[in-house]
Amino acid sequence: MIAELRPETTEAQISSLVNWLEGLGLQVHIYPEGNATILGMIGDVSRVDTQLLESMQIVASVRPVSDSFKKANRKFHPQNTVIKVGNACIGGNSFTVIAGPCSVESEQQIVAVAEAVRQGGANILRGGAFKPRTSPYAFQGLGENGIELLLKAKKATGLPIITEIMNISTLDLFCDVDIIQVGARNMQNFDLLKELGKSNKPVLLKRGPGNTIQELLMSAEYMMCEGNENIILCERGIRTFETYTRNTLDLSAVPVLQKLSHLPVIVDPSHGTGKAQLVSPMAMAATACGADGVMIEVHNNPSCALCDGPQAITPDQFAILNSKMRQIYQVTHSNP
Amino acid sequence: MIAELRPETTEAQISSLVNWLEGLGLQVHIYPEGNATILGMIGDVSRVDTQLLESMQIVASVRPVSDSFKKANRKFHPQNTVIKVGNACIGGNSFTVIAGPCSVESEQQIVAVAEAVRQGGANILRGGAFKPRTSPYAFQGLGENGIELLLKAKKATGLPIITEIMNISTLDLFCDVDIIQVGARNMQNFDLLKELGKSNKPVLLKRGPGNTIQELLMSAEYMMCEGNENIILCERGIRTFETYTRNTLDLSAVPVLQKLSHLPVIVDPSHGTGKAQLVSPMAMAATACGADGVMIEVHNNPSCALCDGPQAITPDQFAILNSKMRQIYQVTHSNP
Amino acid sequence: MIAELRPETTEAQISSLVNWLEGLGLQVHIYPEGNATILGMIGDVSRVDTQLLESMQIVASVRPVSDSFKKANRKFHPQNTVIKVGNACIGGNSFTVIAGPCSVESEQQIVAVAEAVRQGGANILRGGAFKPRTSPYAFQGLGENGIELLLKAKKATGLPIITEIMNISTLDLFCDVDIIQVGARNMQNFDLLKELGKSNKPVLLKRGPGNTIQELLMSAEYMMCEGNENIILCERGIRTFETYTRNTLDLSAVPVLQKLSHLPVIVDPSHGTGKAQLVSPMAMAATACGADGVMIEVHNNPSCALCDGPQAITPDQFAILNSKMRQIYQVTHSNP
Amino acid sequence: MIAELRPETTEAQISSLVNWLEGLGLQVHIYPEGNATILGMIGDVSRVDTQLLESMQIVASVRPVSDSFKKANRKFHPQNTVIKVGNACIGGNSFTVIAGPCSVESEQQIVAVAEAVRQGGANILRGGAFKPRTSPYAFQGLGENGIELLLKAKKATGLPIITEIMNISTLDLFCDVDIIQVGARNMQNFDLLKELGKSNKPVLLKRGPGNTIQELLMSAEYMMCEGNENIILCERGIRTFETYTRNTLDLSAVPVLQKLSHLPVIVDPSHGTGKAQLVSPMAMAATACGADGVMIEVHNNPSCALCDGPQAITPDQFAILNSKMRQIYQVTHSNP
Repeated sequence: MIAELRPETTEAQISSLVNWLEGLGLQVHIYPEGNATILGMIGDVSRVDTQLLESMQIVASVRPVSDSFKKANRKFHPQNTVIKVGNACIGGNSFTVIAGPCSVESEQQIVAVAEAVRQGGANILRGGAFKPRTSPYAFQGLGENGIELLLKAKKATGLPIITEIMNISTLDLFCDVDIIQVGARNMQNFDLLKELGKSNKPVLLKRGPGNTIQELLMSAEYMMCEGNENIILCERGIRTFETYTRNTLDLSAVPVLQKLSHLPVIVDPSHGTGKAQLVSPMAMAATACGADGVMIEVHNNPSCALCDGPQAITPDQFAILNSKMRQIYQVTHSNP
Repeated sequence: MIAELRPETTEAQISSLVNWLEGLGLQVHIYPEGNATILGMIGDVSRVDTQLLESMQIVASVRPVSDSFKKANRKFHPQNTVIKVGNACIGGNSFTVIAGPCSVESEQQIVAVAEAVRQGGANILRGGAFKPRTSPYAFQGLGENGIELLLKAKKATGLPIITEIMNISTLDLFCDVDIIQVGARNMQNFDLLKELGKSNKPVLLKRGPGNTIQELLMSAEYMMCEGNENIILCERGIRTFETYTRNTLDLSAVPVLQKLSHLPVIVDPSHGTGKAQLVSPMAMAATACGADGVMIEVHNNPSCALCDGPQAITPDQFAILNSKMRQIYQVTHSNP
Repeated sequence: MIAELRPETTEAQISSLVNWLEGLGLQVHIYPEGNATILGMIGDVSRVDTQLLESMQIVASVRPVSDSFKKANRKFHPQNTVIKVGNACIGGNSFTVIAGPCSVESEQQIVAVAEAVRQGGANILRGGAFKPRTSPYAFQGLGENGIELLLKAKKATGLPIITEIMNISTLDLFCDVDIIQVGARNMQNFDLLKELGKSNKPVLLKRGPGNTIQELLMSAEYMMCEGNENIILCERGIRTFETYTRNTLDLSAVPVLQKLSHLPVIVDPSHGTGKAQLVSPMAMAATACGADGVMIEVHNNPSCALCDGPQAITPDQFAILNSKMRQIYQVTHSNP
Repeated sequence: MIAELRPETTEAQISSLVNWLEGLGLQVHIYPEGNATILGMIGDVSRVDTQLLESMQIVASVRPVSDSFKKANRKFHPQNTVIKVGNACIGGNSFTVIAGPCSVESEQQIVAVAEAVRQGGANILRGGAFKPRTSPYAFQGLGENGIELLLKAKKATGLPIITEIMNISTLDLFCDVDIIQVGARNMQNFDLLKELGKSNKPVLLKRGPGNTIQELLMSAEYMMCEGNENIILCERGIRTFETYTRNTLDLSAVPVLQKLSHLPVIVDPSHGTGKAQLVSPMAMAATACGADGVMIEVHNNPSCALCDGPQAITPDQFAILNSKMRQIYQVTHSNP
């Protein structure tokens, strides 16, 4: 870690600061730099409160040299993490397609959609049982019953399933769920993350729309430092001033995350854009920039003229998209 | 609620949509508008999934006429909510100053700071016991012991106390705490909000840095519709592209929230800016634009030359600030 | 255009407002909506100052029914605009690759890069002569001499050229330039846009990093309503809170712009990301989501070990990227 | 300037980079830092292309030690700049109130508003003659005639006037204008800035809604390094995800700018919020956080029931606001 001190800092202030840092067990090197002073700190810098340091009046800036995440860091774990669930692999040399409806509504519905997406080429079935909703007056999902219906669809199709957890007290309900999803709003629910870290169930962690790439990795680190290394990262759009799309899908985050971390990276273009017409182009774009997979909402009632659906595409559109994504994956992963 | 249909919509599509809406119990009025069509819906529009409606290909846009929040809405509750804790009032004709250290560190520290801020004019003592931290390797607070130390400071000074909850399983520890804080990262932890809604303990709800004013009100609504009407809203900065400050303090949110809602609005300039030198100017600005109070970090070791502190000011600076804020409050609340 | 009036609006206020609107030549329809009132306006709504209307205390909201851009609007011009420059076509069924160095530095440099990108598959040569720089102390480009050197490279390779204009007074220098670029910082320099609108030279208009999709289209409209219909839109990243990339490349803007407008849409992943390692993945993603082309910085001195370059890739990397983009274009444009 | 090199950098790469930097005339100091390497550069670092340096694969990060702006920098010019126009002073120990209508419409209108704001306590009259509008179809202002009308209002009231320039070719029209405004959309129209820098007419430079504090200062620097030191900075809101206000007024920028620079800082709460009801609270907040003045839209027809106006307040509201701002200024500038 490097701290730059302001030019007007006195010798006494410098030595007081150095004493404090050494008291935390760090080695401190002092470099003059023009009329400023640079402190280089070596050792367990996680013991220093960076915000405290930054806010001292004599400190102009603080910069970490080593990254603040360890377990999720590709530097210390160069090979890609590959997570196996049922017959599906996530990460490494696979391209994984997760598909299904926004919410589980009925056995008939979820089994029908599951069968449709399996035929369309999906590897994993998604469906919401516990639904985080901005409004307390909105439909909150079928809950426990929703998970039971997902398990029936899993049995009927052989597809592994993923669904969202909102509260650690419901963890027992997820024992036959293949991947637990942590939603964007819970990305920094640290107590939930710690508990999921004690499990070894794969977790798909969605980036919060107001959160940085660095914070996403730190939230993965919360689970990994408790022992769970089966973490999948998911980009689903960030908040910006642009209002034409619900969020701005940050596809640059895909190659950035893959450079920084060995964990698989999935993209959710359905929630990211909020518009059905944008799902296929953005899913193909996600594939082209190197994502390890996508998560797509496919709606449940293709015969219903009204249901072009909230950000969901039809099973037919899904099958075409799946085929095109797999061709693009071949192009980007072939030798030049 | 108003939906605008696209010009190319067929009669059959319109009547299919109208049937669906009427099936949800709504009255639907159809207005031609140039070559587009407008649907006006009356009744319990919360039964309509707005996102679903918006995403239909025949729908150009959807606009609520009535607001989506009820209990927090000034329309249905014109008088200001006033919340009493100990000798302090929040909301109405009071200006409330909450002050204290970022974290509780020791009995000696918290009692000393409590005494200092009481003398400086604070009405309520703040201090972190459970600390949400981006990194799992950072100090996570003293937890239960921290709350005990806060209670000692309360006893020593008579100041009511506020501290943050991160996990509903710890609720019993807060029975002598006067105000429970829900931090910005948990603003949409809906299960936590629902449980706090079943209590009648005052809750200070911080706006998430990636969340809109509307979402903050909806999260208040989560608690209020469970029965807890003692909710205090807190602006503490939003995420923008500007990097000079940690967040961008959105002071316009203060008059906006006060127009939309009857709940008291508090501003936290310490976390919002992340810089000690900005705390006093922004606290005075918060007062001038009509906030019902401020929450200020005051650091614990005024004798330590280094500790100009992470976004914290000294007790002396606090006393001056407190005096100026109260003078500004007089100016803005006097008759012209 | 639709205006929703607040419930408390009086009859007198409504009729005063309606008179004013009718005085502007509009037909006004009045619909009761619950206890609110909706006004539907038909006619030349561009005569109404929407901001004025929105800000009236009796007006709750205003929504345009018809779009505010005409010439750039796909509704009124369903076929794709195709722009021919030399042997290259932009828009329609072509995929156009623009490549070259950030700045023109010398004849030897620009001719060498031009030859390299031509061999690598580029259709058009780019190079900066007038450089808008945040700092007045930074290199401002070779200016007029830079354009002369670009013309030599055009002659040597047969590639059409594109370069940026900063000041309408220099327009004469661009008479042999094939496409004039309007940079992101000048996207709302309306006087410059109007003058370029009087020319019929193709213009590539970059989206400002703080500008919406709607504003980009309105700036195109500024040129088109003066008569120049040869406008190319360019997405190059928007400003967000994420700092890992210089800007956040908003690829969703590509299918959105193509739906709203008939103009060709190009993506610049070099400036958008600011990092060489992200150029190829994001260029492929741009192709996959349907862009009509890309603009890529290729640096000028592949033998210089230092120059992995500011957001620029090497000629070898460019040739591989070009090949992969053209394969992806085939996949996305083939029948299912 | 400090560059941190990646751990894997070879000796050969380091010495190649150092040679290049020394070739630019810099002294380079090399510090080992754990297994990374730090380069400290002293000398005229403006000769280094920071973006180039940052983008080299061996470079992990680059940080300036000295600031990139010189003339605008308080470090090199500790005293506040005070700008005199007519009887008004901007900066230093004055609080300056600029007020007037959005657009000049007629002699009768501008003279009446000028008289009203003079009586209400304004020091300077504002009014738009050349209007930058997002849409080419919107009213573009009275242009040259608008300036003539402003001059009549100046003569009638004695108030100095400020109005916006959009095109350097119109500069001659501004010879009797007291302050030239550069609008937010032209903040990075560098050719315009350079020309204004050659004048010594005071310039009010508005922050672009997508621009950082640093960029605002660099744009001021463009004018100052050409010789014009009479620059006034103006905060008017930045683009964020919050849609309730038109922009998010970044009041923290006021104390930040005043710390970094000696130039006066003005706040425009009318454009920043876009809502009349927010103008007074945010103007008072701007005063309380230390602004050197405010710019307020006051509308032209208080007798017209409709014209509660686009972000404009009435003359009566203005007079009350002016009085309260001046009281708040006294509070914040009094000794504790």
